[in-house]
Amino acid sequence: MRIAVFQATPHPLDLPGNLQRLQQQAQRAAQSGAQLLVCPEMFLSGYNIGREAVARLAEAADGASAQAIAQLCHTQGIAVVYGYAERGTDGQVYNSVQLIDAQGQRLGNYRKTHLFGELDRQQFSAGDVPCPLITLNGWKVGLLICYDIEFPENARQLALAGAELILVPTANMAPYDFICQVTVRARAQENQCYLVYANYCGSEGEIAYCGQSSIIAPDGSVLAMGGQEACQLLADVERERVREGREAFPYLIDLRRDLHR
Amino acid sequence: MRIAVFQATPHPLDLPGNLQRLQQQAQRAAQSGAQLLVCPEMFLSGYNIGREAVARLAEAADGASAQAIAQLCHTQGIAVVYGYAERGTDGQVYNSVQLIDAQGQRLGNYRKTHLFGELDRQQFSAGDVPCPLITLNGWKVGLLICYDIEFPENARQLALAGAELILVPTANMAPYDFICQVTVRARAQENQCYLVYANYCGSEGEIAYCGQSSIIAPDGSVLAMGGQEACQLLADVERERVREGREAFPYLIDLRRDLHR
Repeated sequence: MRIAVFQATPHPLDLPGNLQRLQQQAQRAAQSGAQLLVCPEMFLSGYNIGREAVARLAEAADGASAQAIAQLCHTQGIAVVYGYAERGTDGQVYNSVQLIDAQGQRLGNYRKTHLFGELDRQQFSAGDVPCPLITLNGWKVGLLICYDIEFPENARQLALAGAELILVPTANMAPYDFICQVTVRARAQENQCYLVYANYCGSEGEIAYCGQSSIIAPDGSVLAMGGQEACQLLADVERERVREGREAFPYLIDLRRDLHR
Repeated sequence: MRIAVFQATPHPLDLPGNLQRLQQQAQRAAQSGAQLLVCPEMFLSGYNIGREAVARLAEAADGASAQAIAQLCHTQGIAVVYGYAERGTDGQVYNSVQLIDAQGQRLGNYRKTHLFGELDRQQFSAGDVPCPLITLNGWKVGLLICYDIEFPENARQLALAGAELILVPTANMAPYDFICQVTVRARAQENQCYLVYANYCGSEGEIAYCGQSSIIAPDGSVLAMGGQEACQLLADVERERVREGREAFPYLIDLRRDLHR
């Protein structure tokens, strides 16, 4: 499977403009042979937009934007993962990501469980459910969002459930470059899975995003990595490499779960 | 506290020679102002020496070598962490590390819980108890051994118990340089603790050790790192940096333990 990552500058509050950018990026990715495009956290509305704007722009997981993206996926023949503000049926607003496949089916939705500081807590309620495993093109896929990946427990939970590929829309900012450069590689290697980290670059209000989106192989090697500018990354992933990796590095088998209740 | 790491070439089967080297290194470290010296896994006897030699050279945690090292610690005025083959009172042989303080008191002993492949399994029984927290010079200290650190659960368990400093005697070999270069930094940062990784260099039988021992700060930065040659590393650690780090990166508080049973 070929995966594309859209490392975007944020366009806060501009839902129609962001849908248009998504359309363009999906077309470009599909033309490059990609079967999956991953966008940053809260891509649809922007991330650092404040509690009121988030609440105003929040939509249901099957709302108007989801329907437009499903149409776009179907037209371009590519799956898309994107971040958005989700209005739950409980009335709460969540920091969510959704995966829609190339047939326009909504395959999975995940609400960020580990909120980051006041920025997240002012804008969102925390999800209370780990991401269920999603099957996409034969791959077992898990979703996490930004701060979630900094806790090894979250990726591990997905890997123990069988995830071969973990997709992480993010909005990671200076001075947290360490996460881009070190943490994501450790997470892939310690779980022997692929990891995709889709970040913003540029600034949004007082936030300076640190770019450096990446596609990481199960051995922790960097298949593709962005710099500080907007770009589209591409890399091919092979399930066979996950199988081989887990044979050579049997962490998921050797882990003494009896010692870690 | 100033910490020294002895990145050693292995001297397999030579207990008296290794005790002598330990004496020299402890003296040198103490003269450099270090209060703690950390040596590699199975330092006393060598690591890749085979089941029979391991069984023959194994000693009780309070055996003759431990007594000699306690004397050495007291004479030089420095604490020592060293790896050795431990003969348990149950008759089993464990891959253990022991911490003896500058007064010659045995403060803690840990048996490797996560055995690495056939190499470990042929030579050792696995420990079944996570390392208890040790207090050394006011620091809360945890011990792990080599492969243990590759599982995020082990360092996390220590950090959640309060560890500020994790000491990891190791015998890490080619082609596992990734652990030296990436994993140990991620472990320190994700737990906001100091981490000391004391490895061999040179070869032992068919094993080529990869050196690159390190002392890592709570922010994941490298305070000291060895190359491929024998050396003694030195770095100063400050508890205040752990406190500050855990305030700026409240991973241990933000972790949703309710989602990870």
